Amino acid sequence: MNMPLGHLRVAFLGPRASFSHQAAAESFGRTSADLLPHVSFADAFSALQQQEADYAVIPFENSTNGSVVQTLDLLADRNDLYKDVKVCGEYYLTVHHCLLVRKGTYPSGWEGYDGSITKLYTHPQAWGQCEQLLSQYFKGVERQDVSSTSKGAEIVSKETEERGAAIASRFAAEYHGVDVLKENIEDRADNTTRFLILRNMRAERTAQLELEQPNVLGQDRPAAPTTRKTLISFAIDHSLPGALANALLIFKAHGLNLTSINTRPSLKRAWQYIFFVECGRTPSDENKEAVHKALDDLRHVTEFCRDLGTWNDQLG
Amino acid sequence: MNMPLGHLRVAFLGPRASFSHQAAAESFGRTSADLLPHVSFADAFSALQQQEADYAVIPFENSTNGSVVQTLDLLADRNDLYKDVKVCGEYYLTVHHCLLVRKGTYPSGWEGYDGSITKLYTHPQAWGQCEQLLSQYFKGVERQDVSSTSKGAEIVSKETEERGAAIASRFAAEYHGVDVLKENIEDRADNTTRFLILRNMRAERTAQLELEQPNVLGQDRPAAPTTRKTLISFAIDHSLPGALANALLIFKAHGLNLTSINTRPSLKRAWQYIFFVECGRTPSDENKEAVHKALDDLRHVTEFCRDLGTWNDQLG
Repeated sequence: MNMPLGHLRVAFLGPRASFSHQAAAESFGRTSADLLPHVSFADAFSALQQQEADYAVIPFENSTNGSVVQTLDLLADRNDLYKDVKVCGEYYLTVHHCLLVRKGTYPSGWEGYDGSITKLYTHPQAWGQCEQLLSQYFKGVERQDVSSTSKGAEIVSKETEERGAAIASRFAAEYHGVDVLKENIEDRADNTTRFLILRNMRAERTAQLELEQPNVLGQDRPAAPTTRKTLISFAIDHSLPGALANALLIFKAHGLNLTSINTRPSLKRAWQYIFFVECGRTPSDENKEAVHKALDDLRHVTEFCRDLGTWNDQLG
Repeated sequence: MNMPLGHLRVAFLGPRASFSHQAAAESFGRTSADLLPHVSFADAFSALQQQEADYAVIPFENSTNGSVVQTLDLLADRNDLYKDVKVCGEYYLTVHHCLLVRKGTYPSGWEGYDGSITKLYTHPQAWGQCEQLLSQYFKGVERQDVSSTSKGAEIVSKETEERGAAIASRFAAEYHGVDVLKENIEDRADNTTRFLILRNMRAERTAQLELEQPNVLGQDRPAAPTTRKTLISFAIDHSLPGALANALLIFKAHGLNLTSINTRPSLKRAWQYIFFVECGRTPSDENKEAVHKALDDLRHVTEFCRDLGTWNDQLG
């Protein structure tokens, strides 16, 4: 299957060398697609809706921090801005942090480190993820918050006077041309972010590619996927007792196994919510139409419901 | 019903004059209880568990921004630190912002405002909530982020050289002794935060008071409350298909109407969650035992479940 992948345009949440960039690169291959940074979640969604990008790679949840509310709010699409955007895949990226220094500063590496780093740069969230190393070796060292881990690597790459170090990924180190002084400095080895791969369902380019799961291209694709996941959003009328339970029952009735539920405020009325239900099924002849039938039933008990896409489970 | 309210100790999320302080003051009365600021959510929970406070008033969700994850994470209580803490009430506070200036700076008020303010202070979240006024009257004026809206009011109260203004509540204006130059400057008039009122279920002090709903003290308490709300947390084994649906079905089976569902990572295994289910019932002889029975059933289909308390709905 040889696709014209060189022309694929993949939006990610910038800046360059961010974890989203890494997820996009690993999903689509570093050379075969144009990876396009976007300054905000909304920009990436807009680019996809306007067909300025073929796919978008967006963080959806982290195993430690939970759901990414900006992504849920854009998927909620309260103003019908992104009506052609759907999920077509997912990608799991384990978050590994490294201690990065300007090229050549410490030629003998971490073993020969002499304690001379005077300033540290990283995104505010990363400090808390590397507490063990920081408390053991960098007590009292000045810490400077920056807008992204990648930005910290960039600052360190350009430093001439200070002895600075950044906490960022190996991917960012390679991108900005700095040295990895010590790797895997995170406290939790299992901190993983799940990214959604989105596409514009009306775009001819991606339809022709039939790329439901771009990141399995070139790999042995299993004949029958273990699990197909589906994401559905809906709102209910809370003044009707049992309305939420009835909506959730529909999934069970069609053999769709609920795996997660998220909620965001509807912003139409206070204390009314948009629900995001993720469900899975092992494909069979019997449940081929399960999602379609569930949506039909949901329309009767919800104020609105929306099919946000179906894709292959990358864990199952 | 005369209670020794003067001795009540109520923990709130500080600093003083925060929205939590205001919620605590309005729930418990400004003079009849000792209101104690706590620097973090965890400190407030600890104070309650250690019986250094009788109640705690903690933000739970906002009608625009959604759930407060710090509160959910503490209610999840993954390390059994707060096992006696339960919800006993709720309080809704509508968030009104004011433009605050040092006392006497603008004696003719907003009508006579001459455009001389050179610097604005507020919490980062508040800028976005007052965009209309800011874009109309304060384009290009320097903005300084501060750790709380109350802190901004404090800074302005002490200013001598600059012409600064803070965006904060009227409550903060009164506390810090500054003038309200313009009130209700928020874009959305309906931005409301729901606070939970927590107590230590083993504390004799609060048990004697029988204060399930402290903020209705002194008001005409309805003979029969319209709705009783209950919060229950649980985790399920996701490898069992249908486990989540089965757990949610139990609420319906006992006549408990699901009103909201929140999730947080379990932090035991990636992509496993702790669910927080809020449900309501109109009290009747038939459903007196409904919560108790639902919990009994939940124990059979969940890895753990916990009763986080029952209280009177303040909206219904």
